[in-house]
Amino acid sequence: MPMRLAYLGPPGSYSEQAAIVYDPTAEAIPFPAIPLVVASVGDGLADEAVVPIENSLEGAVTFTLDLLIHQSDLKIRREQVVSIVHCLLVDEATKTGDIRVVYSHPQALAQCREYLTKNLPGAALVASLSTSGAVEDMRNSKAPAAAISSERAADLYGARVRERGIEDLPNNQTRFVVLAREDHARTGMDKTSVCFDFSSDAPGILHKTLGELAERDINLVKIESRPDRRSLGRYVFLIDMEGHREDPRVHDVLEGLRSRTAMFKVLGSYPMAVNSAVP
Amino acid sequence: MPMRLAYLGPPGSYSEQAAIVYDPTAEAIPFPAIPLVVASVGDGLADEAVVPIENSLEGAVTFTLDLLIHQSDLKIRREQVVSIVHCLLVDEATKTGDIRVVYSHPQALAQCREYLTKNLPGAALVASLSTSGAVEDMRNSKAPAAAISSERAADLYGARVRERGIEDLPNNQTRFVVLAREDHARTGMDKTSVCFDFSSDAPGILHKTLGELAERDINLVKIESRPDRRSLGRYVFLIDMEGHREDPRVHDVLEGLRSRTAMFKVLGSYPMAVNSAVP
Repeated sequence: MPMRLAYLGPPGSYSEQAAIVYDPTAEAIPFPAIPLVVASVGDGLADEAVVPIENSLEGAVTFTLDLLIHQSDLKIRREQVVSIVHCLLVDEATKTGDIRVVYSHPQALAQCREYLTKNLPGAALVASLSTSGAVEDMRNSKAPAAAISSERAADLYGARVRERGIEDLPNNQTRFVVLAREDHARTGMDKTSVCFDFSSDAPGILHKTLGELAERDINLVKIESRPDRRSLGRYVFLIDMEGHREDPRVHDVLEGLRSRTAMFKVLGSYPMAVNSAVP
Repeated sequence: MPMRLAYLGPPGSYSEQAAIVYDPTAEAIPFPAIPLVVASVGDGLADEAVVPIENSLEGAVTFTLDLLIHQSDLKIRREQVVSIVHCLLVDEATKTGDIRVVYSHPQALAQCREYLTKNLPGAALVASLSTSGAVEDMRNSKAPAAAISSERAADLYGARVRERGIEDLPNNQTRFVVLAREDHARTGMDKTSVCFDFSSDAPGILHKTLGELAERDINLVKIESRPDRRSLGRYVFLIDMEGHREDPRVHDVLEGLRSRTAMFKVLGSYPMAVNSAVP
């Protein structure tokens, strides 16, 4: 029986691309919202779940971070990087000069603003629920329309790619994480994610805490802060570091962090992504 | 002539409340989007601008952070904290039991989800562009409707407050910053905001940099990371520290940070907010 892999649907989404790159043999199952994707594993509807965690232009997907901090006990088992390549999709008969409406997710519309201003200055920009949903909205439009979506969505829904790579800034990539009941075994090229907070805000407390990594020469890959939801100005920190929790030095770092913090949670150790191109 | 103070409109918004608390004598001028609020000062349409920068539940307003990092040369002159108190507004004649639709900004709808589920389980939740706009949408609704908005919006638009403080979590506060051509003179109870990035990601580089504060016993109030927009996994850091840039120790910290970083920008020194209740 193939592994059941939950992702943020509908089919044709960039999340589905991450799911396919991660495990082409899995049964990929779409869910309509990030909390439902994550809940599917606990509910027995899926074995693992793929959710976006960070985009190179927009930053952290705070919704996912807050779920990992406050609600989920799942572990990060893998990370997967997907290049976001927005395409202008049309129906075969539609001429570019006739396009009056462009549908897409608001973030995709924003990321293609310069292209749209230059090439389709007269078109109305209309928000869809997802980049895949935009193709359906385009189909239902009375005025000649286009959609901004992925090449895969064009294939799936039978639309034409009129132009490929229309985003204003290059290097638009999204990092996804695969969540499961257990994290990944040590590979030798790993990363470990943790989150923690402090019971007081003594001067230098964060600096002393990061010293646990520095004194063992463990590289800090990323640091994020999120509100602790109790009061303004109190934070939960999320840290990614190089190495696996079973590496002796990382193990010592984790014990050091645990002793210096109030809440402390290891979100998982997993192989570091090689930036993987979309197939 | 009163000072002209730009804010994120329309009137009745929480941004307007921040503007009024900051300077009740100013001429408050609404603009429809954060970039326009900020641009108004450079364009000579306003002397200062109020924008939201952080909410105690949602975290950083990344849009504002990215403007400060990449686009604006304005300085932070002040910070202002506003308590967010969502109210259920109706027209006088509407009975609570008859309400079929509730309008508000999606974030406000999300923050009142438990209240709505318990008290108005049959009502459709419909997104408005702002909490103030929700009152107008309520007015135009054919079905009996309510809006989630502020008490001030009720006053301004002549609606009834049916219930006050309907948000699910307490301590919902937003921190606003006032931007101007110059930051604030030293008061003795100040904060300084900076942003910076690194040209390499050597192990421990962030830890060594934060050491500039720790070794001078300067408290780190806040740290945020934002994507540098060039490649995934490279960040710009934003730091708030206690003290004014003219304090000798803070001055030394800033020189130390400048010498360890690539891009380095002082966003301003300003009086630390006393958590100010909404009038």
